[in-house]
Amino acid sequence: MAPSADDIRKTVTKYLEAVAKGTVDDVLALFANGAMIEDPVGTDPRTTTASIREFYAVVEPLEQSAELVTLRIAGNEAAFQFSLVTHLGKQSMELSPIDVMTFDDEGKILTMRAFWSQEDMITR
Amino acid sequence: MAPSADDIRKTVTKYLEAVAKGTVDDVLALFANGAMIEDPVGTDPRTTTASIREFYAVVEPLEQSAELVTLRIAGNEAAFQFSLVTHLGKQSMELSPIDVMTFDDEGKILTMRAFWSQEDMITR
Repeated sequence: MAPSADDIRKTVTKYLEAVAKGTVDDVLALFANGAMIEDPVGTDPRTTTASIREFYAVVEPLEQSAELVTLRIAGNEAAFQFSLVTHLGKQSMELSPIDVMTFDDEGKILTMRAFWSQEDMITR
Repeated sequence: MAPSADDIRKTVTKYLEAVAKGTVDDVLALFANGAMIEDPVGTDPRTTTASIREFYAVVEPLEQSAELVTLRIAGNEAAFQFSLVTHLGKQSMELSPIDVMTFDDEGKILTMRAFWSQEDMITR
């Protein structure tokens, strides 16, 4: 049975919390086995747990806050814009990508593709 | 050669203008041969010119205005949120989907997938 819109909304919310404030394990717990991430879109997809772990390990130690801007759910997929602010001492860097995810029957993430480019980064 | 970010931005801008104010031919001129649309995501994709024409013919006679909210370009793809307002006499209906498009080397649309559901429609 396909995941409900509510299942998808919960996973997206948990994902943003985990990326900003949680551990790599918190993030990985939201993914299905055999998941794929492509961040940003156009780069080589990561298809193994080790390579996905490596990707999120980079952001784990950063002081970050995340906020969901817009979420659109359709079928067993979602597209959402969010703002991710990284606090670096007195400076902060903001990126607000649009992510597209597909989900399995339990609402776990099968694929994550992030749409953004360098020019979308804002340093304050 | 891959389309530039500028090529992609131009096509997205023309697409919104054509959907809101143009003819079906204006819309179809932005698509590559062999294009596919899936609107909303989760419904059967339309893969023939005739079926794509049929889809846009429904909105052609409507009085509409469109506005780009957020555009994220990555590789030869783009994700963007836009607001589409349909004016129906004294009432108006607003929908702001997130669309994901892929583009060919000339910046023409190869695929369009629209993320939205009934609950995202706002009637005023």
